[in-house]
Amino acid sequence: MSGRAGGPPRRALVVGAGLIGTSVALALRERGHDVWLADVKPDHLRQAEELGAGSAHRGESVDVTVVAVPPGSTAQVIVQRLNDDQRNTVTDTASIKREVQQEVERMLDAPSSASHGRAERITRYVGGHPLAGRERGGPQRAHPAMFAGRAWVLTPNAEVSPATLENARWLVTECGATPVTMSAAEHDDALAVTSHLPQLLASALAARLAMQPDPVLQLSGQALRDMTRIAAADPSLWADIATGNALPLAEAIEGLTTSLRDVAAALRSAPPEPEAVRLLIESGGAGHSRLPGKHGGVPRSYQIVPVVVPDQPGQLARLLGDAAAAGVNVEDLRVEHAPGLPVGVIELFVGPESAGVLRTALAERGWTLSDAAEAS
Amino acid sequence: MSGRAGGPPRRALVVGAGLIGTSVALALRERGHDVWLADVKPDHLRQAEELGAGSAHRGESVDVTVVAVPPGSTAQVIVQRLNDDQRNTVTDTASIKREVQQEVERMLDAPSSASHGRAERITRYVGGHPLAGRERGGPQRAHPAMFAGRAWVLTPNAEVSPATLENARWLVTECGATPVTMSAAEHDDALAVTSHLPQLLASALAARLAMQPDPVLQLSGQALRDMTRIAAADPSLWADIATGNALPLAEAIEGLTTSLRDVAAALRSAPPEPEAVRLLIESGGAGHSRLPGKHGGVPRSYQIVPVVVPDQPGQLARLLGDAAAAGVNVEDLRVEHAPGLPVGVIELFVGPESAGVLRTALAERGWTLSDAAEAS
Repeated sequence: MSGRAGGPPRRALVVGAGLIGTSVALALRERGHDVWLADVKPDHLRQAEELGAGSAHRGESVDVTVVAVPPGSTAQVIVQRLNDDQRNTVTDTASIKREVQQEVERMLDAPSSASHGRAERITRYVGGHPLAGRERGGPQRAHPAMFAGRAWVLTPNAEVSPATLENARWLVTECGATPVTMSAAEHDDALAVTSHLPQLLASALAARLAMQPDPVLQLSGQALRDMTRIAAADPSLWADIATGNALPLAEAIEGLTTSLRDVAAALRSAPPEPEAVRLLIESGGAGHSRLPGKHGGVPRSYQIVPVVVPDQPGQLARLLGDAAAAGVNVEDLRVEHAPGLPVGVIELFVGPESAGVLRTALAERGWTLSDAAEAS
Repeated sequence: MSGRAGGPPRRALVVGAGLIGTSVALALRERGHDVWLADVKPDHLRQAEELGAGSAHRGESVDVTVVAVPPGSTAQVIVQRLNDDQRNTVTDTASIKREVQQEVERMLDAPSSASHGRAERITRYVGGHPLAGRERGGPQRAHPAMFAGRAWVLTPNAEVSPATLENARWLVTECGATPVTMSAAEHDDALAVTSHLPQLLASALAARLAMQPDPVLQLSGQALRDMTRIAAADPSLWADIATGNALPLAEAIEGLTTSLRDVAAALRSAPPEPEAVRLLIESGGAGHSRLPGKHGGVPRSYQIVPVVVPDQPGQLARLLGDAAAAGVNVEDLRVEHAPGLPVGVIELFVGPESAGVLRTALAERGWTLSDAAEAS
């Protein structure tokens, strides 16, 4: 937890005690801040309280409000909080930013019973989106380290005050994330390609499986599994996200389907034409090589040390014990195939400075190593 | 290695000492059989020999030949082997089966200088495809456990002899895989959906990344990474595979792009229409739930035990040591997020019978557990 900002405890309210909101609350509590919680679902609120994420909000004034509700309700809750608490900075965690900001601005422009005008309220709002999450939601899956090392986008509007931005950056940093500032439009265009398109692709691919006879599914391998991992997603949440980022997403879909249809046409010609396939695989390789370091967090390069592990219980524990004894931090690992027994190849991901040390130490302890490679 | 067939050592030839061929050879050698190797690339042959996969073939007669060369050369090598060695069963590992079989039959129908006729030769050939592999190829990545627990499809032609089928099943079983028998056409239709379509999708998605500015790539998360993992594929190999299974693959591509284009159209309507997205995500969830047990091998259900691991070196080793001490086999594990430090949630995959034991043992040893879930 080193390297974060210190300072006196602050007061925060988290609206929406789901996976993301409860994780924000837990991260802030761990750093010693006062946290209140609100949720329209009583059981989510109770579960988050039981996890130690904070106590139910009864109108207490705060420094920062984090709105972590579904995208479709986000703008309304933001404006409510700008009206209700005259000093608090309000930010949110919705995965679409342009539409939320436009809706907030529309609502602030409208005649209101709030005691302060548009100009004052808009200065206290800044959009946010932590790039973290899991397939399965709910407060019980929350974790204070959810955002550690992740990017957390902030999308300031034209009128935001320096104090608001400072408060938002404070929040991001206290959660262990790295603030990345861009416009709401830039954010949405980027996410259409890096998040929304992948989700629809995974769903479309998985939907093809629904039509297949059982023997076909028996032939599914790890690649298909990886590519459909996120298909168990929430239909309503994604309907919200997709319609909230409709045009950039439609464009991304159309770009992709056009290139796939070109390949299908080349395959339908007689004889089938290999060049379109070759080009697609080549451009895919070029695009893939541009992805930054693993984990989608702060870019970092790893070395993979693949180790052949015999099919006996306890070998994985012994391997990691040997790595630890060599003073090497294993940052991640992947089991290449483990068909009912821990047999196969374990790929250990370590910092480039540790790969040589680890290989030597493991070889000395009798492990069989395969050739090392850059993490991709 | 228990539960496999025993019997006296047999004689095998592996043509093509790449990743798959060398792994077959290593698996057979490990079971005590005599293995010869052939490859047009001298360095592959030498590397495979150095790994102990067998010795260079100089015309010795064998019981079984495994042809593990690129799909485009497979039929030719199969026929060569049927001609050259009058007793051997010939099978292959190409990931397309219909076209290979048709080409073999065409070549056997043609006038030939072989001393035995079509009828005799076709009885000794059976197509095969082990469902295993890795993103990176080459003999140096080969492993005798490559096929352990995997399905290995056999695609008998109408004239194959029982002895040939028995030899092929022997090969599959000795490699630790499970034989699955279906027609070449059934195989190709299935693989179009479970393997070839996912590859083209991963490539098409990764190709979109090539056009993006750097800040966009900084926002890429684990889902995008998982979905493009296989994009670093061999363009020539995939041009071969795709054109070798052209029509089923074209059909699969068109089915998928049609459903994606419907969603794009719904997003372009004003206001954007959420129903198409909701339906796509729902059908994706339904399809995904039909995938058999993890690893794409013998179906098996696991329980996931998620454990919160503090950000200190050696914790992963300690965790697995505690699991081993409790007598629990950890079948697989996933590091949920590890941003430069081993901090976050480690998901341990164990047999259903072990989940309760593991949870109790880890809780007693002071680990923080999140809620367990079915592996998906």
